[in-house]
Amino acid sequence: MTTVNSTIAPLDKSAQISVIGAGTMGAGIAQVAAAYGHPVILFDQNPEAIQRGLDHIQKGLQGQVKRGKMTEEALQALMANITPATDIAALADCKLVIEAIIEDLGIKRGLLANLEANCAEDCILATNTSSISVTALGAEMKHPERLVGMHFFNPAPIMKLVEIVSGLATSTANAALTHATASAWGKQAVYTKSTPGFIVNRVARPFYAESLRISEEGGADTATLDQLIKGAGGFRMGPFELMDLIGHDVNYAVTCSVFDAYYQDPRFLPSLTQKALVECGRLGRKSGHGFYDYSEGAEKPAATTTTGGNTPQVIQVVGDLGVANSLINRIEAQGINVEKQASDSESYIKVGSARLSLTDGRFATEVAAVGIKDTALFDLAIDYNSASALAVSFADQCSDAAKQDVIGLFNALEINLSVIDDIPGLVVMRTVAMLANEAADAVNQGVCTAADADIAMRGGLNYPKGPLAWTDEVGVNNIFNCLSNLQQSYGEDRYRPSALLRRKFFAGASFHG
Amino acid sequence: MTTVNSTIAPLDKSAQISVIGAGTMGAGIAQVAAAYGHPVILFDQNPEAIQRGLDHIQKGLQGQVKRGKMTEEALQALMANITPATDIAALADCKLVIEAIIEDLGIKRGLLANLEANCAEDCILATNTSSISVTALGAEMKHPERLVGMHFFNPAPIMKLVEIVSGLATSTANAALTHATASAWGKQAVYTKSTPGFIVNRVARPFYAESLRISEEGGADTATLDQLIKGAGGFRMGPFELMDLIGHDVNYAVTCSVFDAYYQDPRFLPSLTQKALVECGRLGRKSGHGFYDYSEGAEKPAATTTTGGNTPQVIQVVGDLGVANSLINRIEAQGINVEKQASDSESYIKVGSARLSLTDGRFATEVAAVGIKDTALFDLAIDYNSASALAVSFADQCSDAAKQDVIGLFNALEINLSVIDDIPGLVVMRTVAMLANEAADAVNQGVCTAADADIAMRGGLNYPKGPLAWTDEVGVNNIFNCLSNLQQSYGEDRYRPSALLRRKFFAGASFHG
Amino acid sequence: MTTVNSTIAPLDKSAQISVIGAGTMGAGIAQVAAAYGHPVILFDQNPEAIQRGLDHIQKGLQGQVKRGKMTEEALQALMANITPATDIAALADCKLVIEAIIEDLGIKRGLLANLEANCAEDCILATNTSSISVTALGAEMKHPERLVGMHFFNPAPIMKLVEIVSGLATSTANAALTHATASAWGKQAVYTKSTPGFIVNRVARPFYAESLRISEEGGADTATLDQLIKGAGGFRMGPFELMDLIGHDVNYAVTCSVFDAYYQDPRFLPSLTQKALVECGRLGRKSGHGFYDYSEGAEKPAATTTTGGNTPQVIQVVGDLGVANSLINRIEAQGINVEKQASDSESYIKVGSARLSLTDGRFATEVAAVGIKDTALFDLAIDYNSASALAVSFADQCSDAAKQDVIGLFNALEINLSVIDDIPGLVVMRTVAMLANEAADAVNQGVCTAADADIAMRGGLNYPKGPLAWTDEVGVNNIFNCLSNLQQSYGEDRYRPSALLRRKFFAGASFHG
Repeated sequence: MTTVNSTIAPLDKSAQISVIGAGTMGAGIAQVAAAYGHPVILFDQNPEAIQRGLDHIQKGLQGQVKRGKMTEEALQALMANITPATDIAALADCKLVIEAIIEDLGIKRGLLANLEANCAEDCILATNTSSISVTALGAEMKHPERLVGMHFFNPAPIMKLVEIVSGLATSTANAALTHATASAWGKQAVYTKSTPGFIVNRVARPFYAESLRISEEGGADTATLDQLIKGAGGFRMGPFELMDLIGHDVNYAVTCSVFDAYYQDPRFLPSLTQKALVECGRLGRKSGHGFYDYSEGAEKPAATTTTGGNTPQVIQVVGDLGVANSLINRIEAQGINVEKQASDSESYIKVGSARLSLTDGRFATEVAAVGIKDTALFDLAIDYNSASALAVSFADQCSDAAKQDVIGLFNALEINLSVIDDIPGLVVMRTVAMLANEAADAVNQGVCTAADADIAMRGGLNYPKGPLAWTDEVGVNNIFNCLSNLQQSYGEDRYRPSALLRRKFFAGASFHG
Repeated sequence: MTTVNSTIAPLDKSAQISVIGAGTMGAGIAQVAAAYGHPVILFDQNPEAIQRGLDHIQKGLQGQVKRGKMTEEALQALMANITPATDIAALADCKLVIEAIIEDLGIKRGLLANLEANCAEDCILATNTSSISVTALGAEMKHPERLVGMHFFNPAPIMKLVEIVSGLATSTANAALTHATASAWGKQAVYTKSTPGFIVNRVARPFYAESLRISEEGGADTATLDQLIKGAGGFRMGPFELMDLIGHDVNYAVTCSVFDAYYQDPRFLPSLTQKALVECGRLGRKSGHGFYDYSEGAEKPAATTTTGGNTPQVIQVVGDLGVANSLINRIEAQGINVEKQASDSESYIKVGSARLSLTDGRFATEVAAVGIKDTALFDLAIDYNSASALAVSFADQCSDAAKQDVIGLFNALEINLSVIDDIPGLVVMRTVAMLANEAADAVNQGVCTAADADIAMRGGLNYPKGPLAWTDEVGVNNIFNCLSNLQQSYGEDRYRPSALLRRKFFAGASFHG
Repeated sequence: MTTVNSTIAPLDKSAQISVIGAGTMGAGIAQVAAAYGHPVILFDQNPEAIQRGLDHIQKGLQGQVKRGKMTEEALQALMANITPATDIAALADCKLVIEAIIEDLGIKRGLLANLEANCAEDCILATNTSSISVTALGAEMKHPERLVGMHFFNPAPIMKLVEIVSGLATSTANAALTHATASAWGKQAVYTKSTPGFIVNRVARPFYAESLRISEEGGADTATLDQLIKGAGGFRMGPFELMDLIGHDVNYAVTCSVFDAYYQDPRFLPSLTQKALVECGRLGRKSGHGFYDYSEGAEKPAATTTTGGNTPQVIQVVGDLGVANSLINRIEAQGINVEKQASDSESYIKVGSARLSLTDGRFATEVAAVGIKDTALFDLAIDYNSASALAVSFADQCSDAAKQDVIGLFNALEINLSVIDDIPGLVVMRTVAMLANEAADAVNQGVCTAADADIAMRGGLNYPKGPLAWTDEVGVNNIFNCLSNLQQSYGEDRYRPSALLRRKFFAGASFHG
């Protein structure tokens, strides 16, 4: 990736900025630059589009004024910073021009040629493309070193992240100046090499893919998976809710695009179920039906939870539960006695005859076959003290009595317990492990730094933790073992641990410090 | 997959049925419904096509009358049940309409729209498609819950199987009613989720693929492989004979279609040899040349068999040979003394200095490297007592004397012995393991039940056993180990054991009971 | 592959030959045949093209005359052997016609039909195609057994190799006669089955692919990799220099074509970096910029070498270093004491606290985790006595003191030492292992013999050794282990050892004798 001097100064407030294309993204970006104080030219060939863009900005700001978050004066000042233009000659003195027109290689190239002919030599030309190679966009430019990707997320005034994308020819200085400027605007800017999906649209794929696959294999229903990802994983939305919101046409197209761009790497394998949704027009909220039915009066299916069981009076904790240690506090808080037993080689909870461990990517049935019959596995939670939901699976060999003991333990904790089918890696652990794997691979290929990968996923998609910081918390060894076991369980390259994760595992190192 | 109340009643004999499209499949389906007693409307836009269809039916029935399998009265009654129609308004009172027109998404969708406009609301609309997603076919329907896939096999009056295919929107009740009706007609109906290849065209791929690959790797010639698949495997035709019959253009296109639909899963990898046959127009019987030459006077190549060797007077059997135990009876029946020696950890036949075991998916050369030099492996047979052919392979380290002992033993059994090159998993074991793997994966993905997977492969392609019942006979552990070792031998995801097979292995469970 | 009687006689010098297409390749082939003494018809529809072809030949020969490598008389005799023709009827008496027209299936098929109509029945029709299936080219011929691939390399008069390519229908006799004739002309002819890339364009892929990947993973920069491949590997050009020479458009297209033809086998995975170069027009020398900048005054980046370190007075050699034994001589020649210690199980050099071993495809960091902290790995060299460069990597756990000891040792040898990042298999070992793997797989699939694979890579691309002879030298066990460990390190099918390599490993066999 591009590494640069972090002390470079941003463009001055007096520097003229232009945004090309007055659609939702373009208007949003113009608002961000104007809010900082730049004189901003909002350019569009169509004057009516500019007016709609200005109206859109104004309407949003008026909402803020109403909610007391902005003064009317500030609104007026911001709007006064924005000037419409339909003649490209107006951009002659700009220091930064950001194009936000339609995603079409040929049309964008044409625009860039036009900008090169009309803008000053020291003007940075930026593109808000989300899916086109910045290298390819710059191919016909006289000075492709001027072109920088500046990928905002929708809605631009609210979402914190901006990916600063360098094509092969992008100059380090221009990337750095763009980064500093986006930072000055209050954004979290991250550097990334122009590669398919950049950081966010690449690293996020497993968030959807793993839940789709668990569902296709009958591991759990969509409502249960959504509840687990939120209640145990701490994500704001479940994957099925989120795909329904994004639209399956869009989400499937992004997946296919990344899959093809990475030459059909099985890590990005599209889902047949999602393809079927697209085929039959169940595109999600916008069509009234996706995984869920949004028609009037339709009831949202409830997550499957398992109640009952025998509340234990005492449990044994053998070894160090690591990331799951806080679960013990929660158990003790319920008045259940916890007997601790030291062990260097093992780590599990004994409740009745059941041995309950954190999932390591194997089938519970396999763990039982090489261990004891009454095996149960529990899922990762972002915080076992506050988790409102948790998944547990049982080995096929597990006795009913042992199951009741485990079920009783978790129900005593007032957690929404979902006993799901025996799925390797369960739900949250498997999802986090695969997100971390993808982030690690991006780092390994020089697409970004570990720090930026984490910033990107938190800022671009509101993830509760960066995947690599999360890995450090869970333990590189646990994430590596989980992935290795997933690869063994499915026999598929899809779950191969990134070489970087392997190396950190053997080095006993972590991603952050 | 769809699970339904198995006690639902089929459509009454008085219910009017219509078949759209009077080609071979349409006419065949019409005959089946008419034979049961339904009044059947054979619909086609082209009156001449209807006449050809009726003639086709009549000619087939007359053959049966001649062979004494049907009375002239029954023929007349059946034909009287079929009414031609060229006006879609004639279908207004049908309870079930089955379309059997050309495989074209757009044309079929147009027809379905027309049917929705003309048929009663309670009429089930069925499609005989073999390759188009039922979900996609129903996408533009007002009531896609009415659409059910009803995939007959050619020739429809003779082949027992009907795949009842549910798209995403297909209602459980309509699938169940279609299933019950097909069953009443004397068919073996199986439920399947609409996924590429449904059950039969997916699970059958390894039957061709493994023999193609063994041949490409120089393991054995096509005539030998055909003989082994028939004489040891119990299949009616060998894979090369069968591909020559089906036509390589068709067979290769189905493989490519399934391969692409599963996003280039290496399990479905097409064969370069078959591609070359298509490229040069050697399409099989229909073009006069495929793997074999069908021109006048051309001689079919003979299978390679190995005669001679030293007939042993005594052999030792160490441990339990499991599925190959019946081989011992056959050996004893030839007057060869069998000395048995108990062992919990090993299972092989000792003949002279040779150690002869059932293949486990490793190279004989690898088994020898970690065991003894004089290693020989024999293939799976569906019934060692009656098998007319069998494959054996030798480790590269094996001495000639040991080879002669093994060759002599099998020649004493009056079996067509083919000593093939050292190919992991040999021929029948490898084929059966991969068929079972594909069936297990279909079950794992909820495409069908284990029982229906077996019914489908026996009824749709006349397989001598269902792949999963066969797995239970051979032992889930043996099939799982064979696949794990194949994956190790080739290092390819292609041979990964299905997660369901792995789980059953660790649970010590089987597929049926 | 085709195996034939090696004693078959070539076409007589008096036999008339024709070459179709008077471009660079066609003219070169005509020159070769004329130099042998055949009467050669140089055919082209365009008389000016013929004249340009003749001029091209003459100019090249005059250069030889000037350099004293040829007499003027010999030049005149050679030129006199070549007759131009624009009328296909002139070819009626030819014994061999070689087409070297543009790579277009339809146009070549049309020409072949024309040739069948105009040439005598016993005339062999040969095609110089490099990328089209010979089987497909022959599909519409009346007698496809006449068609033989005769793949020359550019420039044809200089490059030794000719691939004799058999399509499905090519007769053994015609392939053999073509082989014998090419041999008589002074070429190294090899047999190959018509499969994607034939031998050379397939087996060569890893030469580019592995260095691209190491570079993408930040293992070393391009100038360093080029230096290592040349200075340690003994190749004439480094992969980045060579790709810049070939042109990235061409090299990337060949890779994609082979990748697709092998149904997206990950072994042939194209590189995103190379794709980006093509996207932005950095095509290499011909565009003035590729991996390197060829504009006037541009400086070529230097390889990264590491100097300094502590020169040791004594080292210990434990066990047998095998292929790296000659390194000990070089160390001793510098006056460093070498203490030898026998070991059957281990093999390494001890220098200070550092344990230095030949790479086995694992991360140094992994070797250290299961061994000792101060682990260093060195790369394969084609000849440790004369190598001018060598790569070394250190485990993440390795102490600085140990690093200085290793660096000092190699600097004492006056070798260009490049300490590269901890990359599994380093550079030369990894490249050679993957070249050998590809060659072994071609042999396993019957594309060619081991001997011909080696001849092809030396004759077609000037490799310093054939990959399989090299494997025998390094040891089949070492190459197999390296690949197995690479597959483990990356978790990818891409590095799977060929089944043939595995079998030879377990048999304790080699490729040559």
